[in-house]
Amino acid sequence: MPQNPQIHLVSRPKGEPLAENFQLLTLDTPALADQQVLVKHEYLSLDPYMRGRMNDVKSYTLPQPLNSVMIGGTVGEVVESRHPGFSPGDKVVGMGGWQTYSVVDASAPGALRKIDTTHVPISHYLGAVGMPGVTAWHGLVRIIEPKAGQTLTVSAASGAVGSAFGALAKARGCRVIGIAGGKDKCDYVTHDLGFDACIDYKQHNDYLSLSKALKDVCPDGIDGHFENVGGMVLDAVMLRMNHFSSIAVCGMISGYNGHPIPMANPSLILVNRMKVQGFIVSEHPADWPLALKELGELVGSGKFKPRETVAQGLANAPEAFFGLLKGKNFGKQVVKI
Amino acid sequence: MPQNPQIHLVSRPKGEPLAENFQLLTLDTPALADQQVLVKHEYLSLDPYMRGRMNDVKSYTLPQPLNSVMIGGTVGEVVESRHPGFSPGDKVVGMGGWQTYSVVDASAPGALRKIDTTHVPISHYLGAVGMPGVTAWHGLVRIIEPKAGQTLTVSAASGAVGSAFGALAKARGCRVIGIAGGKDKCDYVTHDLGFDACIDYKQHNDYLSLSKALKDVCPDGIDGHFENVGGMVLDAVMLRMNHFSSIAVCGMISGYNGHPIPMANPSLILVNRMKVQGFIVSEHPADWPLALKELGELVGSGKFKPRETVAQGLANAPEAFFGLLKGKNFGKQVVKI
Repeated sequence: MPQNPQIHLVSRPKGEPLAENFQLLTLDTPALADQQVLVKHEYLSLDPYMRGRMNDVKSYTLPQPLNSVMIGGTVGEVVESRHPGFSPGDKVVGMGGWQTYSVVDASAPGALRKIDTTHVPISHYLGAVGMPGVTAWHGLVRIIEPKAGQTLTVSAASGAVGSAFGALAKARGCRVIGIAGGKDKCDYVTHDLGFDACIDYKQHNDYLSLSKALKDVCPDGIDGHFENVGGMVLDAVMLRMNHFSSIAVCGMISGYNGHPIPMANPSLILVNRMKVQGFIVSEHPADWPLALKELGELVGSGKFKPRETVAQGLANAPEAFFGLLKGKNFGKQVVKI
Repeated sequence: MPQNPQIHLVSRPKGEPLAENFQLLTLDTPALADQQVLVKHEYLSLDPYMRGRMNDVKSYTLPQPLNSVMIGGTVGEVVESRHPGFSPGDKVVGMGGWQTYSVVDASAPGALRKIDTTHVPISHYLGAVGMPGVTAWHGLVRIIEPKAGQTLTVSAASGAVGSAFGALAKARGCRVIGIAGGKDKCDYVTHDLGFDACIDYKQHNDYLSLSKALKDVCPDGIDGHFENVGGMVLDAVMLRMNHFSSIAVCGMISGYNGHPIPMANPSLILVNRMKVQGFIVSEHPADWPLALKELGELVGSGKFKPRETVAQGLANAPEAFFGLLKGKNFGKQVVKI
């Protein structure tokens, strides 16, 4: 069996994660048992949720165990199979973790899914046509429930979730305004992704200033918002939300590293009769096939051209992850294994 | 036509409302036009929402105009009618305002509704079997959507909305925990209203302390919460909310008089996949008949014995309203005209 380089979490970060929290080891891959499949990873997905898993606190899932392979989504190719549904050469997506190979019990529901890479590049199954894309779909379709002509906003608009949100919202005839950090990202959001406008939050020192900028591009207010960030962005958006509007809460990245960030004006939830709802996409398996079909068509037809930042080599995964938490990536962050 | 003592809002309060913001005048009642009804009020309802109306800011309704009769719910008796659906002697509920008589266009939908005072005392149509009761019903049934055996909480539990919430929740087989200010109110909530427990928030200096007390009486967490207050109480409750729980946001009374009160830990909305939703009961007319029927049966059968604080005479309405904002009332605050 092949050697398997892998990255373990060996201590829990206090605040920002550091290189010392991770360790690269190389172990043997074990022999396959019945129903198991050996997958060689081509790409590893890096996602903000991973920071939350590194904490040993009550959250929506168990914490990442210490001294074991970091959790993570992967795409790759089957190299050996003892499951009748998979053969060597099959392209698959799964949760292989921060390592070069994974041994997967392919009989577990949802553990491994075959993918068609004819029209969609394989790495996009970690982004636009994967978990981030379905995340955008669920928040948009199930929580915001948009109507054509409405104005929607999304934070971290140039990222994997934000860009998919924009494509899905445009397909529904909505006006979509992005919020992103920096001119390059904002230019990409409007020019390449086709958003109607994008606000650079880095040009604003407080939420009142950001909110004023939002007013200029959302003169009729905001009907639905998809929140990937929290903090100042959420406070600014809330001041512009319309009556009976909805906010889908998907991420609070700016709170992961430290103390809780308060919401400045919660009474707006009442004043505007808003719905503010949090969700975790993995808890809505029934949505996945429908969402993946639509996302695959948008990408396959070229209507949605997702961007990626690709780190080279497993050893660079921690550094790329630190960059992701600081917004250094541009589009979906993956690691080429 | 009879003389009509009435109270006008003559200036907008800054912070706490003061006596000088109001003026008692006596005007003639005009002669009735076709379709109009003259109602002599027996009771005026005082409600926290009135404070919000006194501000000249964007809210869910237009502000109360200056130099005109303060808005308010009323029950009384028809004394003259030029509408075929109403006759002198009919008992009616409407929005007659802070005055002794009102002239109502009875052809406007929902402007005036006949009530049956055989089993239900007339003043309860301003409370348990009126707007506050329907408010509790909508938040419970439409937003929280409780299941038997679940643990629910409500702030301002001894008030008109809170006490109705408790009765409706108990009727659905839920455990109900109240939050109220002071031993007397808490004793009433548990002994008279039949709540399973009641926490006196005045015994706690911060939300962490209050949250700890909630943990003791909600060992399995909270599945649904009805928020009448906001601020410290909401922050405390949020720390105890279960996965997939809901908060119906009905009031933010502690924020009416001053600056916005932040929400301490909004990331819990994501962590616990919560739904936090604001609503205004007047926007859900379809719920009223169903809710009023259930509430009328609960009160008529004696299962729910709502308590009232009755101020004597229209001239005392402002003072009684100031007391309401400070939590001095016990149960539904009304004014005997």
